Amino acid sequence: MDDAPQAAIAAPARALTEAMAAIYGRGWCDGTGGNFSCVLQRNPLRLLMAPSGVHKGAVAPEALIEVDDHGTVVRGSGKASAETALHLSIVEQCQAGAVLHTHSQAGTLLSHWALPQGHVELKDLEMLKGLSGISTHACSVRLPVLANDQNLQRLSALAAPLLPQAPQGLLIAGHGLYAWGDNLNSAMRHLEILEFLLEQHWRQLLLRAVAPPHSA
Amino acid sequence: MDDAPQAAIAAPARALTEAMAAIYGRGWCDGTGGNFSCVLQRNPLRLLMAPSGVHKGAVAPEALIEVDDHGTVVRGSGKASAETALHLSIVEQCQAGAVLHTHSQAGTLLSHWALPQGHVELKDLEMLKGLSGISTHACSVRLPVLANDQNLQRLSALAAPLLPQAPQGLLIAGHGLYAWGDNLNSAMRHLEILEFLLEQHWRQLLLRAVAPPHSA
Amino acid sequence: MDDAPQAAIAAPARALTEAMAAIYGRGWCDGTGGNFSCVLQRNPLRLLMAPSGVHKGAVAPEALIEVDDHGTVVRGSGKASAETALHLSIVEQCQAGAVLHTHSQAGTLLSHWALPQGHVELKDLEMLKGLSGISTHACSVRLPVLANDQNLQRLSALAAPLLPQAPQGLLIAGHGLYAWGDNLNSAMRHLEILEFLLEQHWRQLLLRAVAPPHSA
Amino acid sequence: MDDAPQAAIAAPARALTEAMAAIYGRGWCDGTGGNFSCVLQRNPLRLLMAPSGVHKGAVAPEALIEVDDHGTVVRGSGKASAETALHLSIVEQCQAGAVLHTHSQAGTLLSHWALPQGHVELKDLEMLKGLSGISTHACSVRLPVLANDQNLQRLSALAAPLLPQAPQGLLIAGHGLYAWGDNLNSAMRHLEILEFLLEQHWRQLLLRAVAPPHSA
Repeated sequence: MDDAPQAAIAAPARALTEAMAAIYGRGWCDGTGGNFSCVLQRNPLRLLMAPSGVHKGAVAPEALIEVDDHGTVVRGSGKASAETALHLSIVEQCQAGAVLHTHSQAGTLLSHWALPQGHVELKDLEMLKGLSGISTHACSVRLPVLANDQNLQRLSALAAPLLPQAPQGLLIAGHGLYAWGDNLNSAMRHLEILEFLLEQHWRQLLLRAVAPPHSA
Repeated sequence: MDDAPQAAIAAPARALTEAMAAIYGRGWCDGTGGNFSCVLQRNPLRLLMAPSGVHKGAVAPEALIEVDDHGTVVRGSGKASAETALHLSIVEQCQAGAVLHTHSQAGTLLSHWALPQGHVELKDLEMLKGLSGISTHACSVRLPVLANDQNLQRLSALAAPLLPQAPQGLLIAGHGLYAWGDNLNSAMRHLEILEFLLEQHWRQLLLRAVAPPHSA
Repeated sequence: MDDAPQAAIAAPARALTEAMAAIYGRGWCDGTGGNFSCVLQRNPLRLLMAPSGVHKGAVAPEALIEVDDHGTVVRGSGKASAETALHLSIVEQCQAGAVLHTHSQAGTLLSHWALPQGHVELKDLEMLKGLSGISTHACSVRLPVLANDQNLQRLSALAAPLLPQAPQGLLIAGHGLYAWGDNLNSAMRHLEILEFLLEQHWRQLLLRAVAPPHSA
Repeated sequence: MDDAPQAAIAAPARALTEAMAAIYGRGWCDGTGGNFSCVLQRNPLRLLMAPSGVHKGAVAPEALIEVDDHGTVVRGSGKASAETALHLSIVEQCQAGAVLHTHSQAGTLLSHWALPQGHVELKDLEMLKGLSGISTHACSVRLPVLANDQNLQRLSALAAPLLPQAPQGLLIAGHGLYAWGDNLNSAMRHLEILEFLLEQHWRQLLLRAVAPPHSA
């Protein structure tokens, strides 16, 4: 176990638990669903995250755990979620500083629905500009969808080749969304943007199917 | 009436009223709908619950009542709801420590809609893992649906054979959901999970009916 | 103007403004929509209500006005809404102690949709038992729908014959819901029940139209 | 940079940030979407607004910026959004005292859907009376829809001829709503009214497409 003073992680721990409470308040991590992490340091890697199996809306900052690059808990009590493997892949391959994994209605719905295509296509929407590197609505973004798998090593291996092109987000079918960013603030921005776009997408599918434009 | 000090039930009473306020905040017990209970002791059985006919979002801990295994009020003022009979069946047959009965939009909608089949089938969803005893999304869970009946003794007798197999939950048609668990925390987790899955199920029915996968 | 001490109305004024803030919080009186009143005394009649044209979510108790049985403001500053005429009809014909008029999405939607039939039929739902005088789900309730009219005297005259049979509520087409009760608490209960049932009704119409029961 | 005391703008700055927090709370400016301004003085014009690229739900009053009639920042740090050009057009052509630009689900959905017609038609709804100058539900209002354009000078030029007739609001396709008013309070009222009417409109399209009136 590390000996570094607890004080050093007080600010990120408070920020992460506040983010988790806000995410729970939106209904994106009911039950004990979802998981959330942020990078404390890179060499060696230390990831701050919620322990497995707890209610994410009411975690105290001191109840967070710290894991290394093998997903081993190096500080705090509680088990690391099996999903830590995917958090670590994203942190390493995308240079992400924070990873937010939610179980929203729209994310669950569209990830299931779009699995045959392998992606959800999002286009011509101003909100796309909230994603890093996008400066116009006039573009098309493909959010990858992977089949769900309880073997997270296997799932992470399948996700790996998709991560470099992924628009700061990835869907697991019937499961939910992973969103990330350089730091917790940008990961939160990407999460809000992608959840907004997913909610928008299914409403668009519904409306256009029953009342095509021009038909009014 | 019991003489045990009121202090002994202060913590569970506060926890139950906080849970009720949170449940009201989500719109799952409007009007004076729903009812909520937790076990204080087993031998003899003492169930702490809200009195009948009150607004469940703003009950003071000291306004809760205590009933015995016949549903007779043994402490506090106010009437026990007729639905106490079903709470007691669940507590006894499922060894539940808490029972949460809600009137949500999705629970009311699907319980009515699925009555002819007698169940709502929930499958291939990660959130199923939030139910005790389920460790993979790759499964199918049948949430039983019973016809509504103002005779709660009769309704409880019909529910009895279904309870041992029920996934910590049961629907009454056009009425709502009963969810339970070993204690208040696990009952709340099961409630959030089942409400999430019901909301998901009707959105899935809607989307798939008007825009089948592959059609995009 | 009356001379009675302001203190006498402090409690009902606070209760009414708290109810209005809660109603606004649910999105049922956006803009400056809706109006809300409660009876202070019967002989002569004094009705406490919000002035016309103000945001109903943030009215101070001392900003409420008091009107007599002709709708004339007898205390406080501000204009009485034209809708006061309908509040007064309901108070007088239904012996209501409080009247709550909302502009919700479901109320607006179904009032417009159901105008040709002249009512919305609500049946086989446990939540109906939240309406005074109903003790079983196995019943059918017709919520009357009237065409909207900017002439509130004329609208009130058309509403009058319907009020005695109305289930503590009435819809005005493309406009919203009036709900009432013996006192503010029961009016709030009826409002929550009717809004729940209206929201349920349109979801039911939608789901049954695209995915009839048995079809799954 | 101006030398006027910061105190002079304390009240409008607090009011504007409170409005932004309320708007964020409704889910109308997720990510760093939306922008919001109010006029501090007319000659010369000084517009108080949020800087570009910040989360609009948690801006401190002192973090707001002040721009002149060319969109140049004359007080505070941070960049003015490119959308300032459209805020200025509206302030100048409509004599607006405040402009609120949101990215809601309904605004995004219908602006995209209705682009071929060039407007969303809103009619026969009581809530229309919440718009300045409208005194009856029995009217039809056309909310203009413009194609989105990252060149805000060009977009503002196209908007200019539409502004005098616009019902205190304008949609940009796949982007969102601009609403305005004489002051911040009336702009907020118009925003709530227009967002309500847009949400209502798409539910109406959906319901009427699958379950036409009379069909029940």
